[in-house]
Amino acid sequence: MSLLVIGSMALDTVETPFGKNIDVLGGSAVYGSVSASYFTDVKIISVIGKDFPKAHMRLLKSKGIDLSGVQVKKGKSFRWEGKYDWNLNSPQTLATHLNVLSDFRPVLSDFDRKCDFIFLANNDPELQLDIISQASPAKFMAADTIEFWINNKRSKLIKVLKGVDIFIINENEARLLTKEPNLVKAAKAIISLGARKVIVKKGEHGLLYVTKRSFFATPAYPLETIYDPTGAGDSFAGGFLGFLANTKHLNEASYRKALIYGTIMASYSVEGFNLKVLSALNRRLIEKRYKEFEKLVRF
Amino acid sequence: MSLLVIGSMALDTVETPFGKNIDVLGGSAVYGSVSASYFTDVKIISVIGKDFPKAHMRLLKSKGIDLSGVQVKKGKSFRWEGKYDWNLNSPQTLATHLNVLSDFRPVLSDFDRKCDFIFLANNDPELQLDIISQASPAKFMAADTIEFWINNKRSKLIKVLKGVDIFIINENEARLLTKEPNLVKAAKAIISLGARKVIVKKGEHGLLYVTKRSFFATPAYPLETIYDPTGAGDSFAGGFLGFLANTKHLNEASYRKALIYGTIMASYSVEGFNLKVLSALNRRLIEKRYKEFEKLVRF
Repeated sequence: MSLLVIGSMALDTVETPFGKNIDVLGGSAVYGSVSASYFTDVKIISVIGKDFPKAHMRLLKSKGIDLSGVQVKKGKSFRWEGKYDWNLNSPQTLATHLNVLSDFRPVLSDFDRKCDFIFLANNDPELQLDIISQASPAKFMAADTIEFWINNKRSKLIKVLKGVDIFIINENEARLLTKEPNLVKAAKAIISLGARKVIVKKGEHGLLYVTKRSFFATPAYPLETIYDPTGAGDSFAGGFLGFLANTKHLNEASYRKALIYGTIMASYSVEGFNLKVLSALNRRLIEKRYKEFEKLVRF
Repeated sequence: MSLLVIGSMALDTVETPFGKNIDVLGGSAVYGSVSASYFTDVKIISVIGKDFPKAHMRLLKSKGIDLSGVQVKKGKSFRWEGKYDWNLNSPQTLATHLNVLSDFRPVLSDFDRKCDFIFLANNDPELQLDIISQASPAKFMAADTIEFWINNKRSKLIKVLKGVDIFIINENEARLLTKEPNLVKAAKAIISLGARKVIVKKGEHGLLYVTKRSFFATPAYPLETIYDPTGAGDSFAGGFLGFLANTKHLNEASYRKALIYGTIMASYSVEGFNLKVLSALNRRLIEKRYKEFEKLVRF
Protein backbone atom coordinates (compact mmCIF):
# COMPACT_ATOMS: atom_id res chain seq x y z
CA MET A 1 0.00 0.00 0.00
CA SER A 2 1.13 3.56 -0.48
CA LEU A 3 0.35 6.97 0.90
CA LEU A 4 -0.02 10.18 -1.05
CA VAL A 5 0.70 13.31 1.02
CA ILE A 6 -0.63 16.55 -0.44
CA GLY A 7 0.50 19.68 1.33
CA SER A 8 3.16 22.31 1.70
CA MET A 9 6.93 22.17 1.48
CA ALA A 10 8.33 25.14 3.30
CA LEU A 11 11.34 27.03 4.46
CA ASP A 12 10.56 27.68 8.12
CA THR A 13 12.06 30.26 10.43
CA VAL A 14 11.22 29.15 13.95
CA GLU A 15 12.15 30.66 17.28
CA THR A 16 11.65 28.72 20.51
CA PRO A 17 13.05 29.49 23.98
CA PHE A 18 15.88 27.11 23.04
CA GLY A 19 17.05 28.78 19.85
CA LYS A 20 16.23 30.16 16.44
CA ASN A 21 16.49 28.36 13.11
CA ILE A 22 16.30 30.25 9.84
CA ASP A 23 14.96 28.91 6.53
CA VAL A 24 15.02 25.29 7.65
CA LEU A 25 13.16 22.43 5.98
CA GLY A 26 9.49 22.38 6.96
CA GLY A 27 5.93 22.23 5.69
CA SER A 28 3.01 19.89 6.34
CA ALA A 29 3.82 17.52 3.46
CA VAL A 30 7.43 17.25 4.64
CA TYR A 31 6.64 16.38 8.26
CA GLY A 32 3.79 14.09 7.20
CA SER A 33 5.79 12.21 4.60
CA VAL A 34 9.00 11.82 6.61
CA SER A 35 6.95 10.46 9.52
CA ALA A 36 5.00 8.08 7.27
CA SER A 37 8.16 6.93 5.47
CA TYR A 38 9.03 4.62 8.40
CA PHE A 39 5.85 2.63 7.75
CA THR A 40 4.97 2.68 4.05
CA ASP A 41 5.77 4.01 0.57
CA VAL A 42 5.11 7.73 0.39
CA LYS A 43 4.72 10.18 -2.45
CA ILE A 44 4.55 13.95 -1.96
CA ILE A 45 2.38 16.23 -4.10
CA SER A 46 3.60 19.78 -3.55
CA VAL A 47 5.33 22.77 -5.05
CA ILE A 48 8.64 24.50 -4.39
CA GLY A 49 10.50 27.48 -5.81
CA LYS A 50 13.84 27.51 -7.54
CA ASP A 51 15.43 28.55 -4.24
CA PHE A 52 14.56 25.31 -2.43
CA PRO A 53 17.88 23.84 -1.24
CA LYS A 54 18.94 20.62 -2.97
CA ALA A 55 20.11 19.27 0.39
CA HIS A 56 16.50 19.28 1.58
CA MET A 57 15.42 17.25 -1.46
CA ARG A 58 18.28 14.82 -0.85
CA LEU A 59 17.15 14.33 2.74
CA LEU A 60 13.61 13.49 1.59
CA LYS A 61 14.98 11.17 -1.09
CA SER A 62 17.15 9.43 1.52
CA LYS A 63 13.91 8.56 3.35
CA GLY A 64 12.70 6.80 0.19
CA ILE A 65 10.04 9.43 -0.48
CA ASP A 66 8.83 9.74 -4.08
CA LEU A 67 9.37 13.37 -5.10
CA SER A 68 8.13 13.07 -8.69
CA GLY A 69 4.97 14.95 -7.70
CA VAL A 70 6.89 17.99 -6.47
CA GLN A 71 6.61 20.81 -9.02
CA VAL A 72 9.51 23.24 -9.20
CA LYS A 73 8.23 26.69 -10.16
CA LYS A 74 9.83 30.01 -10.92
CA GLY A 75 9.82 32.18 -7.83
CA LYS A 76 10.40 31.68 -4.16
CA SER A 77 9.36 28.74 -2.00
CA PHE A 78 6.65 29.01 0.62
CA ARG A 79 8.00 30.48 3.85
CA TRP A 80 6.60 30.51 7.36
CA GLU A 81 7.94 32.33 10.39
CA GLY A 82 6.77 31.51 13.89
CA LYS A 83 7.72 31.96 17.50
CA TYR A 84 6.94 29.82 20.54
CA ASP A 85 7.08 31.16 24.07
CA TRP A 86 7.94 29.20 27.22
CA ASN A 87 4.72 27.23 27.44
CA LEU A 88 5.43 25.87 23.90
CA ASN A 89 1.74 25.95 23.00
CA SER A 90 0.45 27.27 19.69
CA PRO A 91 3.03 29.50 18.01
CA GLN A 92 2.68 33.14 17.16
CA THR A 93 2.85 33.39 13.37
CA LEU A 94 5.19 36.24 12.51
CA ALA A 95 4.99 35.94 8.72
CA THR A 96 3.50 33.75 6.01
CA HIS A 97 4.82 34.15 2.47
CA LEU A 98 2.82 31.85 0.20
CA ASN A 99 5.01 32.59 -2.84
CA VAL A 100 4.79 29.61 -5.27
CA LEU A 101 2.16 27.95 -3.04
CA SER A 102 -0.38 30.69 -3.86
CA ASP A 103 -1.38 29.11 -7.17
CA PHE A 104 -0.84 25.46 -6.21
CA ARG A 105 -3.56 23.45 -8.02
CA PRO A 106 -2.49 19.81 -7.96
CA VAL A 107 -3.68 17.48 -10.72
CA LEU A 108 -3.43 13.84 -9.74
CA SER A 109 -1.82 11.41 -12.19
CA ASP A 110 -3.17 7.93 -12.85
CA PHE A 111 -0.51 6.64 -10.45
CA ASP A 112 -1.63 9.06 -7.75
CA ARG A 113 -5.24 8.00 -8.14
CA LYS A 114 -4.17 4.42 -7.46
CA CYS A 115 -2.67 5.30 -4.07
CA ASP A 116 -4.87 3.69 -1.46
CA PHE A 117 -4.26 6.30 1.22
CA ILE A 118 -4.29 10.05 0.81
CA PHE A 119 -3.44 12.69 3.40
CA LEU A 120 -4.84 16.11 2.60
CA ALA A 121 -2.69 18.22 4.89
CA ASN A 122 -3.91 21.69 5.84
CA ASN A 123 -4.91 23.65 2.74
CA ASP A 124 -7.69 25.78 1.29
CA PRO A 125 -10.82 23.60 1.64
CA GLU A 126 -11.72 24.33 -2.01
CA LEU A 127 -8.44 22.79 -3.07
CA GLN A 128 -9.00 19.85 -0.70
CA LEU A 129 -12.47 19.33 -2.25
CA ASP A 130 -10.99 19.39 -5.73
CA ILE A 131 -8.54 16.63 -4.77
CA ILE A 132 -11.31 14.62 -3.11
CA SER A 133 -13.27 14.68 -6.38
CA GLN A 134 -10.19 13.71 -8.41
CA ALA A 135 -9.25 10.91 -6.00
CA SER A 136 -12.69 9.55 -5.27
CA PRO A 137 -11.77 5.85 -5.79
CA ALA A 138 -9.10 6.10 -3.05
CA LYS A 139 -9.51 3.62 -0.25
CA PHE A 140 -8.93 6.06 2.56
CA MET A 141 -8.65 9.84 2.78
CA ALA A 142 -7.80 12.01 5.77
CA ALA A 143 -7.83 15.80 6.02
CA ASP A 144 -6.42 18.36 8.43
CA THR A 145 -7.15 22.07 8.66
CA ILE A 146 -6.35 25.29 10.58
CA GLU A 147 -8.35 28.04 12.30
CA PHE A 148 -8.06 30.33 9.27
CA TRP A 149 -10.27 28.06 7.15
CA ILE A 150 -12.77 27.54 9.97
CA ASN A 151 -13.15 31.30 10.18
CA ASN A 152 -13.13 32.00 6.46
CA LYS A 153 -14.44 28.95 4.57
CA ARG A 154 -16.57 27.10 7.09
CA SER A 155 -19.15 25.70 4.66
CA LYS A 156 -16.49 24.39 2.26
CA LEU A 157 -14.61 22.88 5.20
CA ILE A 158 -17.76 21.05 6.29
CA LYS A 159 -17.93 19.54 2.78
CA VAL A 160 -14.33 18.40 3.22
CA LEU A 161 -15.00 16.69 6.54
CA LYS A 162 -17.97 14.91 4.97
CA GLY A 163 -15.89 13.83 2.00
CA VAL A 164 -13.01 12.14 3.82
CA ASP A 165 -12.79 9.02 5.95
CA ILE A 166 -11.20 10.76 8.89
CA PHE A 167 -11.00 14.38 9.89
CA ILE A 168 -8.05 15.54 12.02
CA ILE A 169 -8.33 18.71 14.06
CA ASN A 170 -6.82 20.15 17.23
CA GLU A 171 -8.74 21.01 20.39
CA ASN A 172 -8.98 24.76 19.82
CA GLU A 173 -10.06 24.26 16.22
CA ALA A 174 -12.68 21.73 17.29
CA ARG A 175 -14.11 24.23 19.78
CA LEU A 176 -14.05 26.99 17.18
CA LEU A 177 -15.72 24.85 14.52
CA THR A 178 -18.53 23.64 16.79
CA LYS A 179 -18.87 26.55 19.30
CA GLU A 180 -18.76 23.83 21.94
CA PRO A 181 -16.32 24.31 24.87
CA ASN A 182 -16.61 20.67 26.05
CA LEU A 183 -14.29 18.60 23.85
CA VAL A 184 -16.32 15.40 24.03
CA LYS A 185 -19.37 17.33 22.84
CA ALA A 186 -17.26 19.12 20.22
CA ALA A 187 -16.00 15.80 18.82
CA LYS A 188 -19.54 14.42 18.68
CA ALA A 189 -20.73 17.65 17.05
CA ILE A 190 -18.16 17.14 14.28
CA ILE A 191 -19.62 13.66 13.73
CA SER A 192 -23.08 15.30 13.59
CA LEU A 193 -21.74 17.71 10.95
CA GLY A 194 -21.12 14.64 8.79
CA ALA A 195 -17.61 13.39 9.60
CA ARG A 196 -17.26 9.60 9.69
CA LYS A 197 -14.37 9.65 12.16
CA VAL A 198 -12.67 12.49 13.97
CA ILE A 199 -9.37 12.82 15.80
CA VAL A 200 -9.13 15.73 18.25
CA LYS A 201 -5.46 16.40 19.01
CA LYS A 202 -4.76 17.86 22.46
CA GLY A 203 -0.96 18.30 22.27
CA GLU A 204 0.70 17.33 25.57
CA HIS A 205 -2.66 15.97 26.78
CA GLY A 206 -3.03 13.33 24.06
CA LEU A 207 -6.06 12.89 21.85
CA LEU A 208 -9.67 11.80 21.49
CA TYR A 209 -10.83 9.61 18.62
CA VAL A 210 -14.56 9.50 18.03
CA THR A 211 -16.84 7.74 15.55
CA LYS A 212 -20.60 7.24 15.56
CA ARG A 213 -20.14 4.04 17.54
CA SER A 214 -16.85 4.27 19.40
CA PHE A 215 -14.76 6.47 21.63
CA PHE A 216 -11.04 6.29 22.35
CA ALA A 217 -8.84 8.48 24.54
CA THR A 218 -5.11 8.37 25.12
CA PRO A 219 -2.57 10.57 26.87
CA ALA A 220 0.46 11.80 24.96
CA TYR A 221 3.87 10.21 25.40
CA PRO A 222 5.26 12.12 28.40
CA LEU A 223 8.22 14.27 27.43
CA GLU A 224 10.52 16.24 29.67
CA THR A 225 12.07 18.23 26.89
CA ILE A 226 10.26 19.71 23.93
CA TYR A 227 12.53 21.71 21.67
CA ASP A 228 10.25 22.62 18.79
CA PRO A 229 6.55 21.74 18.44
CA THR A 230 6.53 22.68 14.73
CA GLY A 231 5.13 19.86 12.62
CA ALA A 232 3.88 17.77 15.57
CA GLY A 233 0.38 17.49 14.09
CA ASP A 234 1.65 16.47 10.66
CA SER A 235 4.14 14.01 12.17
CA PHE A 236 1.20 12.53 14.07
CA ALA A 237 -0.89 12.26 10.88
CA GLY A 238 2.04 10.74 8.97
CA GLY A 239 2.62 8.05 11.57
CA PHE A 240 -1.10 7.35 11.90
CA LEU A 241 -1.74 7.07 8.15
CA GLY A 242 1.59 5.41 7.39
CA PHE A 243 0.81 2.64 9.86
CA LEU A 244 -2.75 2.24 8.53
CA ALA A 245 -1.52 2.11 4.92
CA ASN A 246 0.65 -0.84 5.88
CA THR A 247 -2.12 -2.67 7.76
CA LYS A 248 -4.18 -5.47 6.29
CA HIS A 249 -7.43 -4.93 8.13
CA LEU A 250 -8.91 -1.53 8.86
CA ASN A 251 -10.86 -1.94 12.07
CA GLU A 252 -11.15 -0.32 15.50
CA ALA A 253 -8.10 -2.23 16.76
CA SER A 254 -5.88 -1.11 13.89
CA TYR A 255 -7.11 2.49 14.13
CA ARG A 256 -6.19 2.56 17.81
CA LYS A 257 -2.74 1.10 17.18
CA ALA A 258 -2.27 3.66 14.41
CA LEU A 259 -3.25 6.48 16.80
CA ILE A 260 -0.54 5.34 19.21
CA TYR A 261 2.04 5.17 16.41
CA GLY A 262 1.01 8.71 15.46
CA THR A 263 1.45 9.74 19.08
CA ILE A 264 4.93 8.21 19.16
CA MET A 265 5.98 9.95 15.93
CA ALA A 266 4.74 13.33 17.23
CA SER A 267 6.68 12.79 20.45
CA TYR A 268 9.92 12.16 18.57
CA SER A 269 9.25 15.07 16.22
CA VAL A 270 9.07 17.70 18.99
CA GLU A 271 12.18 16.41 20.72
CA GLY A 272 14.42 18.06 18.17
CA PHE A 273 14.45 21.27 16.15
CA ASN A 274 12.56 20.99 12.86
CA LEU A 275 13.23 17.53 11.34
CA LYS A 276 16.45 16.76 13.23
CA VAL A 277 15.06 13.90 15.33
CA LEU A 278 12.14 12.86 13.11
CA SER A 279 14.36 12.29 10.08
CA ALA A 280 16.97 10.30 12.03
CA LEU A 281 14.68 7.57 13.37
CA ASN A 282 14.40 3.91 12.54
CA ARG A 283 11.76 1.28 13.11
CA ARG A 284 13.61 -0.11 16.14
CA LEU A 285 13.45 3.24 17.98
CA ILE A 286 9.78 3.61 17.06
CA GLU A 287 8.90 0.13 18.35
CA LYS A 288 10.95 0.75 21.49
CA ARG A 289 8.95 3.87 22.36
CA TYR A 290 5.66 2.17 21.41
CA LYS A 291 6.45 -0.59 23.92
CA GLU A 292 7.45 1.96 26.58
CA PHE A 293 4.18 3.75 25.97
CA GLU A 294 2.22 0.53 26.44
CA LYS A 295 3.88 0.11 29.82
CA LEU A 296 3.12 3.73 30.77
CA VAL A 297 -0.62 3.43 30.25
CA ARG A 298 -1.48 -0.19 31.05
CA PHE A 299 -3.49 -0.89 34.20
CA MET B 1 -8.84 -2.15 56.43
CA SER B 2 -10.12 1.33 57.17
CA LEU B 3 -9.50 4.85 56.01
CA LEU B 4 -9.29 7.94 58.16
CA VAL B 5 -10.16 11.15 56.32
CA ILE B 6 -8.99 14.35 58.00
CA GLY B 7 -10.27 17.55 56.46
CA SER B 8 -13.07 20.06 56.27
CA MET B 9 -16.81 19.70 56.48
CA ALA B 10 -18.39 22.72 54.88
CA LEU B 11 -21.49 24.54 53.86
CA ASP B 12 -20.75 25.47 50.24
CA THR B 13 -22.38 28.13 48.12
CA VAL B 14 -21.50 27.31 44.54
CA GLU B 15 -22.50 28.99 41.31
CA THR B 16 -21.92 27.31 37.96
CA PRO B 17 -23.38 28.26 34.55
CA PHE B 18 -26.08 25.68 35.32
CA GLY B 19 -27.32 27.05 38.61
CA LYS B 20 -26.55 28.25 42.12
CA ASN B 21 -26.73 26.21 45.32
CA ILE B 22 -26.62 27.89 48.70
CA ASP B 23 -25.20 26.38 51.92
CA VAL B 24 -25.09 22.84 50.54
CA LEU B 25 -23.08 19.97 52.02
CA GLY B 26 -19.42 20.18 51.02
CA GLY B 27 -15.84 20.11 52.26
CA SER B 28 -12.81 17.97 51.48
CA ALA B 29 -13.49 15.36 54.18
CA VAL B 30 -17.07 15.00 52.99
CA TYR B 31 -16.26 14.43 49.32
CA GLY B 32 -13.29 12.21 50.22
CA SER B 33 -15.20 10.05 52.69
CA VAL B 34 -18.39 9.64 50.65
CA SER B 35 -16.28 8.59 47.65
CA ALA B 36 -14.21 6.17 49.74
CA SER B 37 -17.33 4.74 51.45
CA TYR B 38 -18.07 2.60 48.37
CA PHE B 39 -14.80 0.73 48.88
CA THR B 40 -13.91 0.56 52.56
CA ASP B 41 -14.77 1.62 56.14
CA VAL B 42 -14.29 5.33 56.57
CA LYS B 43 -14.01 7.59 59.57
CA ILE B 44 -14.01 11.39 59.34
CA ILE B 45 -11.97 13.63 61.65
CA SER B 46 -13.35 17.13 61.33
CA VAL B 47 -15.22 19.95 63.05
CA ILE B 48 -18.62 21.54 62.50
CA GLY B 49 -20.63 24.33 64.14
CA LYS B 50 -23.96 24.06 65.89
CA ASP B 51 -25.62 25.25 62.65
CA PHE B 52 -24.58 22.19 60.62
CA PRO B 53 -27.83 20.66 59.33
CA LYS B 54 -28.73 17.27 60.82
CA ALA B 55 -29.82 16.09 57.37
CA HIS B 56 -26.21 16.36 56.19
CA MET B 57 -25.06 14.20 59.08
CA ARG B 58 -27.79 11.67 58.31
CA LEU B 59 -26.64 11.49 54.69
CA LEU B 60 -23.07 10.75 55.78
CA LYS B 61 -24.30 8.17 58.30
CA SER B 62 -26.38 6.53 55.57
CA LYS B 63 -23.14 5.93 53.69
CA GLY B 64 -21.82 4.02 56.71
CA ILE B 65 -19.29 6.73 57.56
CA ASP B 66 -18.09 6.85 61.17
CA LEU B 67 -18.80 10.37 62.45
CA SER B 68 -17.54 9.89 66.00
CA GLY B 69 -14.48 11.98 65.16
CA VAL B 70 -16.55 15.01 64.13
CA GLN B 71 -16.40 17.64 66.87
CA VAL B 72 -19.41 19.91 67.22
CA LYS B 73 -18.31 23.33 68.42
CA LYS B 74 -20.06 26.51 69.42
CA GLY B 75 -20.18 28.89 66.49
CA LYS B 76 -20.75 28.63 62.77
CA SER B 77 -19.58 25.90 60.43
CA PHE B 78 -16.88 26.47 57.82
CA ARG B 79 -18.33 28.11 54.70
CA TRP B 80 -16.95 28.44 51.19
CA GLU B 81 -18.39 30.40 48.29
CA GLY B 82 -17.17 29.90 44.75
CA LYS B 83 -18.15 30.54 41.18
CA TYR B 84 -17.26 28.64 37.99
CA ASP B 85 -17.49 30.21 34.56
CA TRP B 86 -18.26 28.44 31.28
CA ASN B 87 -14.96 26.62 30.93
CA LEU B 88 -15.57 25.00 34.37
CA ASN B 89 -11.90 25.22 35.26
CA SER B 90 -10.66 26.38 38.65
CA PRO B 91 -13.33 28.36 40.50
CA GLN B 92 -13.17 31.94 41.59
CA THR B 93 -13.33 31.93 45.39
CA LEU B 94 -15.83 34.59 46.45
CA ALA B 95 -15.59 34.04 50.20
CA THR B 96 -13.99 31.75 52.78
CA HIS B 97 -15.32 31.84 56.34
CA LEU B 98 -13.19 29.49 58.44
CA ASN B 99 -15.40 29.88 61.52
CA VAL B 100 -15.02 26.76 63.74
CA LEU B 101 -12.34 25.40 61.40
CA SER B 102 -9.94 28.18 62.41
CA ASP B 103 -8.84 26.43 65.61
CA PHE B 104 -9.19 22.83 64.38
CA ARG B 105 -6.37 20.84 66.04
CA PRO B 106 -7.25 17.15 65.73
CA VAL B 107 -5.94 14.71 68.31
CA LEU B 108 -6.00 11.13 67.08
CA SER B 109 -7.50 8.48 69.35
CA ASP B 110 -6.00 5.03 69.79
CA PHE B 111 -8.59 3.75 67.30
CA ASP B 112 -7.59 6.43 64.78
CA ARG B 113 -3.94 5.51 65.10
CA LYS B 114 -4.83 1.94 64.17
CA CYS B 115 -6.39 2.99 60.85
CA ASP B 116 -4.12 1.68 58.13
CA PHE B 117 -4.86 4.43 55.65
CA ILE B 118 -5.00 8.15 56.31
CA PHE B 119 -5.99 10.90 53.91
CA LEU B 120 -4.76 14.33 54.93
CA ALA B 121 -7.03 16.49 52.81
CA ASN B 122 -5.98 20.07 52.10
CA ASN B 123 -5.07 21.85 55.31
CA ASP B 124 -2.38 24.02 56.91
CA PRO B 125 0.85 22.04 56.43
CA GLU B 126 1.73 22.54 60.11
CA LEU B 127 -1.48 20.77 61.06
CA GLN B 128 -0.78 18.04 58.49
CA LEU B 129 2.72 17.59 60.01
CA ASP B 130 1.24 17.31 63.47
CA ILE B 131 -1.07 14.51 62.33
CA ILE B 132 1.79 12.76 60.55
CA SER B 133 3.75 12.69 63.80
CA GLN B 134 0.74 11.43 65.76
CA ALA B 135 -0.06 8.76 63.15
CA SER B 136 3.42 7.60 62.34
CA PRO B 137 2.71 3.86 62.61
CA ALA B 138 0.00 4.17 59.88
CA LYS B 139 0.51 1.91 56.92
CA PHE B 140 -0.19 4.51 54.28
CA MET B 141 -0.67 8.29 54.33
CA ALA B 142 -1.62 10.61 51.48
CA ALA B 143 -1.78 14.40 51.51
CA ASP B 144 -3.32 17.05 49.27
CA THR B 145 -2.77 20.81 49.29
CA ILE B 146 -3.74 24.09 47.60
CA GLU B 147 -1.89 27.06 46.09
CA PHE B 148 -2.28 29.11 49.26
CA TRP B 149 0.05 26.80 51.23
CA ILE B 150 2.56 26.60 48.38
CA ASN B 151 2.76 30.40 48.43
CA ASN B 152 2.71 30.82 52.19
CA LYS B 153 4.18 27.72 53.87
CA ARG B 154 6.39 26.17 51.23
CA SER B 155 9.05 24.72 53.56
CA LYS B 156 6.45 23.12 55.86
CA LEU B 157 4.65 21.74 52.82
CA ILE B 158 7.88 20.13 51.62
CA LYS B 159 8.14 18.41 55.01
CA VAL B 160 4.59 17.12 54.47
CA LEU B 161 5.34 15.67 51.05
CA LYS B 162 8.41 13.94 52.50
CA GLY B 163 6.37 12.56 55.39
CA VAL B 164 3.58 10.86 53.45
CA ASP B 165 3.50 7.88 51.13
CA ILE B 166 1.82 9.73 48.30
CA PHE B 167 1.44 13.41 47.55
CA ILE B 168 -1.55 14.55 45.51
CA ILE B 169 -1.44 17.88 43.68
CA ASN B 170 -3.04 19.46 40.63
CA GLU B 171 -1.16 20.62 37.53
CA ASN B 172 -1.10 24.33 38.36
CA GLU B 173 -0.01 23.63 41.93
CA ALA B 174 2.73 21.30 40.66
CA ARG B 175 4.03 24.04 38.36
CA LEU B 176 3.84 26.62 41.15
CA LEU B 177 5.63 24.39 43.66
CA THR B 178 8.48 23.47 41.32
CA LYS B 179 8.66 26.55 39.01
CA GLU B 180 8.69 24.03 36.17
CA PRO B 181 6.23 24.59 33.30
CA ASN B 182 6.69 21.07 31.86
CA LEU B 183 4.49 18.73 33.92
CA VAL B 184 6.67 15.66 33.53
CA LYS B 185 9.63 17.64 34.84
CA ALA B 186 7.42 19.14 37.57
CA ALA B 187 6.34 15.68 38.75
CA LYS B 188 9.94 14.47 38.79
CA ALA B 189 10.98 17.63 40.63
CA ILE B 190 8.45 16.80 43.36
CA ILE B 191 10.08 13.37 43.68
CA SER B 192 13.44 15.16 43.94
CA LEU B 193 12.00 17.31 46.74
CA GLY B 194 11.54 14.07 48.66
CA ALA B 195 8.08 12.71 47.77
CA ARG B 196 7.94 8.93 47.43
CA LYS B 197 5.04 8.99 44.96
CA VAL B 198 3.19 11.88 43.36
CA ILE B 199 -0.12 12.16 41.55
CA VAL B 200 -0.52 15.22 39.32
CA LYS B 201 -4.22 15.76 38.59
CA LYS B 202 -4.98 17.41 35.25
CA GLY B 203 -8.79 17.66 35.45
CA GLU B 204 -10.41 16.84 32.10
CA HIS B 205 -7.00 15.73 30.81
CA GLY B 206 -6.50 12.94 33.34
CA LEU B 207 -3.44 12.49 35.50
CA LEU B 208 0.21 11.56 35.81
CA TYR B 209 1.48 9.23 38.52
CA VAL B 210 5.21 9.27 39.11
CA THR B 211 7.57 7.47 41.45
CA LYS B 212 11.35 7.14 41.40
CA ARG B 213 11.05 4.07 39.23
CA SER B 214 7.74 4.26 37.37
CA PHE B 215 5.54 6.50 35.31
CA PHE B 216 1.84 6.19 34.58
CA ALA B 217 -0.45 8.43 32.53
CA THR B 218 -4.18 8.15 31.95
CA PRO B 219 -6.82 10.35 30.34
CA ALA B 220 -9.91 11.32 32.33
CA TYR B 221 -13.24 9.59 31.79
CA PRO B 222 -14.73 11.62 28.92
CA LEU B 223 -17.80 13.56 30.04
CA GLU B 224 -20.19 15.56 27.93
CA THR B 225 -21.83 17.28 30.84
CA ILE B 226 -20.09 18.64 33.90
CA TYR B 227 -22.46 20.37 36.30
CA ASP B 228 -20.21 21.18 39.24
CA PRO B 229 -16.47 20.47 39.54
CA THR B 230 -16.48 21.15 43.30
CA GLY B 231 -14.94 18.27 45.20
CA ALA B 232 -13.60 16.46 42.12
CA GLY B 233 -10.09 16.23 43.57
CA ASP B 234 -11.29 14.93 46.94
CA SER B 235 -13.67 12.46 45.24
CA PHE B 236 -10.66 11.26 43.27
CA ALA B 237 -8.56 10.88 46.41
CA GLY B 238 -11.40 9.10 48.22
CA GLY B 239 -11.85 6.55 45.43
CA PHE B 240 -8.10 6.07 45.07
CA LEU B 241 -7.44 5.56 48.79
CA GLY B 242 -10.69 3.67 49.43
CA PHE B 243 -9.77 1.13 46.77
CA LEU B 244 -6.19 0.82 48.08
CA ALA B 245 -7.42 0.37 51.67
CA ASN B 246 -9.43 -2.61 50.50
CA THR B 247 -6.58 -4.15 48.49
CA LYS B 248 -4.40 -6.96 49.77
CA HIS B 249 -1.18 -6.12 47.98
CA LEU B 250 0.12 -2.62 47.49
CA ASN B 251 2.08 -2.71 44.26
CA GLU B 252 2.29 -0.86 40.95
CA ALA B 253 -0.68 -2.82 39.55
CA SER B 254 -2.95 -2.00 42.50
CA TYR B 255 -1.87 1.66 42.51
CA ARG B 256 -2.80 1.93 38.83
CA LYS B 257 -6.20 0.28 39.37
CA ALA B 258 -6.77 2.62 42.31
CA LEU B 259 -5.94 5.63 40.11
CA ILE B 260 -8.59 4.53 37.64
CA TYR B 261 -11.16 4.06 40.42
CA GLY B 262 -10.30 7.56 41.61
CA THR B 263 -10.80 8.82 38.05
CA ILE B 264 -14.20 7.11 37.88
CA MET B 265 -15.32 8.58 41.23
CA ALA B 266 -14.25 12.09 40.15
CA SER B 267 -16.19 11.69 36.90
CA TYR B 268 -19.38 10.77 38.74
CA SER B 269 -18.83 13.53 41.28
CA VAL B 270 -18.78 16.35 38.71
CA GLU B 271 -21.84 15.06 36.88
CA GLY B 272 -24.16 16.42 39.56
CA PHE B 273 -24.34 19.46 41.79
CA ASN B 274 -22.43 19.05 45.06
CA LEU B 275 -22.91 15.46 46.33
CA LYS B 276 -26.09 14.64 44.41
CA VAL B 277 -24.58 12.03 42.10
CA LEU B 278 -21.60 10.99 44.26
CA SER B 279 -23.78 10.10 47.23
CA ALA B 280 -26.28 8.13 45.14
CA LEU B 281 -23.88 5.61 43.61
CA ASN B 282 -23.42 1.92 44.18
CA ARG B 283 -20.65 -0.56 43.43
CA ARG B 284 -22.45 -1.81 40.30
CA LEU B 285 -22.44 1.68 38.72
CA ILE B 286 -18.81 2.15 39.65
CA GLU B 287 -17.78 -1.18 38.14
CA LYS B 288 -19.85 -0.43 35.02
CA ARG B 289 -18.01 2.81 34.39
CA TYR B 290 -14.65 1.21 35.21
CA LYS B 291 -15.29 -1.40 32.50
CA GLU B 292 -16.43 1.27 30.04
CA PHE B 293 -13.24 3.17 30.78
CA GLU B 294 -11.14 0.09 30.09
CA LYS B 295 -12.78 -0.18 26.67
CA LEU B 296 -12.20 3.52 25.98
CA VAL B 297 -8.45 3.36 26.48
CA ARG B 298 -7.42 -0.14 25.44
CA PHE B 299 -5.37 -0.52 22.26
